[in-house]
Amino acid sequence: MAVGIIEADNIPPVAGVRLASVAAGIKKNGRNDMVVFAFDEGVSCAATFTQNAFCAAPVTLAKKHLSAAKKAQLSPRALLINSGNANAGTGETGLQNAAQTCQWLADELQCSAQQILPFSTGVIGQQLPMSVMRSGIKQAVTKLTEDNWLSAARGIMTTDTVMKAATETLMLDGQKVVISGIAKGAGMICPNMATMLCFIATDANVENDFLQQCLSDAVADSFNAITVDGDTSTNDACVLIATAKANNALLNTTSADAGVFADSLSRVCQQLAQAIVRDGEGATKFVTVDIRQAGSGHEAKNVAYTIAHSPLVKTALFASDPNWGRILAAVGRAGLEQLDIGGVNIFLDDVCIVRGGGVDANYREEQGQTVMNRPEITIMVELGRGSESAVIWTTDLSHEYVRINAEYRT
Amino acid sequence: MAVGIIEADNIPPVAGVRLASVAAGIKKNGRNDMVVFAFDEGVSCAATFTQNAFCAAPVTLAKKHLSAAKKAQLSPRALLINSGNANAGTGETGLQNAAQTCQWLADELQCSAQQILPFSTGVIGQQLPMSVMRSGIKQAVTKLTEDNWLSAARGIMTTDTVMKAATETLMLDGQKVVISGIAKGAGMICPNMATMLCFIATDANVENDFLQQCLSDAVADSFNAITVDGDTSTNDACVLIATAKANNALLNTTSADAGVFADSLSRVCQQLAQAIVRDGEGATKFVTVDIRQAGSGHEAKNVAYTIAHSPLVKTALFASDPNWGRILAAVGRAGLEQLDIGGVNIFLDDVCIVRGGGVDANYREEQGQTVMNRPEITIMVELGRGSESAVIWTTDLSHEYVRINAEYRT
Repeated sequence: MAVGIIEADNIPPVAGVRLASVAAGIKKNGRNDMVVFAFDEGVSCAATFTQNAFCAAPVTLAKKHLSAAKKAQLSPRALLINSGNANAGTGETGLQNAAQTCQWLADELQCSAQQILPFSTGVIGQQLPMSVMRSGIKQAVTKLTEDNWLSAARGIMTTDTVMKAATETLMLDGQKVVISGIAKGAGMICPNMATMLCFIATDANVENDFLQQCLSDAVADSFNAITVDGDTSTNDACVLIATAKANNALLNTTSADAGVFADSLSRVCQQLAQAIVRDGEGATKFVTVDIRQAGSGHEAKNVAYTIAHSPLVKTALFASDPNWGRILAAVGRAGLEQLDIGGVNIFLDDVCIVRGGGVDANYREEQGQTVMNRPEITIMVELGRGSESAVIWTTDLSHEYVRINAEYRT
Repeated sequence: MAVGIIEADNIPPVAGVRLASVAAGIKKNGRNDMVVFAFDEGVSCAATFTQNAFCAAPVTLAKKHLSAAKKAQLSPRALLINSGNANAGTGETGLQNAAQTCQWLADELQCSAQQILPFSTGVIGQQLPMSVMRSGIKQAVTKLTEDNWLSAARGIMTTDTVMKAATETLMLDGQKVVISGIAKGAGMICPNMATMLCFIATDANVENDFLQQCLSDAVADSFNAITVDGDTSTNDACVLIATAKANNALLNTTSADAGVFADSLSRVCQQLAQAIVRDGEGATKFVTVDIRQAGSGHEAKNVAYTIAHSPLVKTALFASDPNWGRILAAVGRAGLEQLDIGGVNIFLDDVCIVRGGGVDANYREEQGQTVMNRPEITIMVELGRGSESAVIWTTDLSHEYVRINAEYRT
């Protein structure tokens, strides 16, 4: 059902990053369910994690390992990712299990367990199958190669119907540099890290703090600007590794090429984030919600998410019904102080449907219908209150969404 | 599909209230679509309206008429209600049309237009069919009788599958008093007045300010504590008329019977509010969300609505899937400052599923399954942060919800 998305058929390797993707046996259907990223010593690493107070054992441990490794001046050596089991809501046993899997991989790679970052996605509330994890790790380390990105993209999928990968090549300091990334996620998608995992690597030589700044900025306008169903998951993470194999001079905030790198990274993140929405559970539409003339950025995002989360707007999108009243009603209940609905204009793509808070005098239903029949639609709202704006991406709400989420565990 | 609701077969008349319900022709299916409540001079009136900034023409006009009548020391003489057309998003023409319909009814009843309160529900963005409205009004005034409550309850329905009516009799000051009410609403249901209309009348003799206080309190714990889909409508209103025909001494906040009246009114409102949820679009479950041990009432309601609005929780309820991870994840993302998830317990009816932030050690899936198979379920969450609490009512999210809302205008 994915909307306007074509699976990549080639993701160039990133020097210094070896990957393996195996079917350890966590998923019952025999598909790949374990992915390992391995690096040489000395990579830089940036990361963002879920803001859900109920966060999964691997998230807790990955944060702890990152901070302990930093103190010990150690760099990450591997990412250990499993799908099919989120290791969330699993208490102390879940934490011990995550730590044990890191230790197993550390033993194989002859490094400290703190240099392994664990990630899990899948069903909540079940303990990891530890013997399966152990044999999977042993198998994975024998299969590490640089040319394994597409297989890794498939190995982290859960309810995804297509694999998500994106890449950019750019020149930094006269050196050709690559940024490649993979992501997974289709449901429980909401701002502030959705149920998504994203792993990006570059061979660029990037100063640590600048790397984190670039990632945080890129995530704000990509993964934190998408929503499928308003639910934020317990396991979200986005990790960016820089291997420094490209031999460019160390990139930092004052470098001439700083903006080039940041822009490329943003595009990779946006492409992956939009791929998650395009593959949103049950999605039949890819919808851009573009709010303009807001009094503040916060207010703009607030209106955008109120529209994007409205079940009535989403079901109208599913039905290709230009029901502008539902959009206007969502604007009206977004909680904006002293909103003058008489100053609100709404467009579907280039068609003005609401002007001054009522149906536009020149609007004809056929025009709205023509736009609504498209698989990709922009809802643009002018609030008439200022000059701030926000753009987010979302999907419709279909029968298929209900089916997928009602039957998830059966 | 309504859950655990039996249509009333008798609503006792309220002295001083005459009703008519006719098929004016606004709805295309020939069902009743216009209801008139008529009163003698001298009734007391209390009302609450939608807080949506995009409010419909009749809401704007009803507020204006109420305040103008008060200034002129006139009491309302009639409520003019139509279903099938919301007269929302209809601009200046919509306001003029609403005013014209009030004038027509005022002419028939020989009173001022300010003494008529208009209410509309149905499709947004279409002008009222004025000739149909005019003939409907003429027809309705010939059919006003006190014994017409059930027919009126049917006349205000839109996507409702059952009519909603509730009644209580009580003794005030030694006099037998009746409170009868009808309501409509099944979708776009959210706190702060959902897409619902509710009309209640009593023959009690009640002081005006006290009447408004009783209504506001009753609405807070009934219509403002229900949610089907998180959408707030443009047309919501709840009106309470007291005709003073019962000959009790004027009831005010200091009366001995003040609490008796307030409690009866609250029960009528709660019964009608719960009926709206039970008849929620596509509802297969009636779900009570009961939050305890919160740090504040605001925080308790926040957690309650985050659970009640989560599409993942709602689809799990539809699937009768005791997926406690989704409930815990909703608690975790409700935005509570420094929430210790380790202090959270969750119960499905009497079964503890989560204790201390993880699955309860004694929990077995069959226990959760047994509860989930019931049509009426209570999700009780203990936050371990204080002593405040909140109770709200909601439904699941079914295929049928999507079908109803995708096909609403087709």
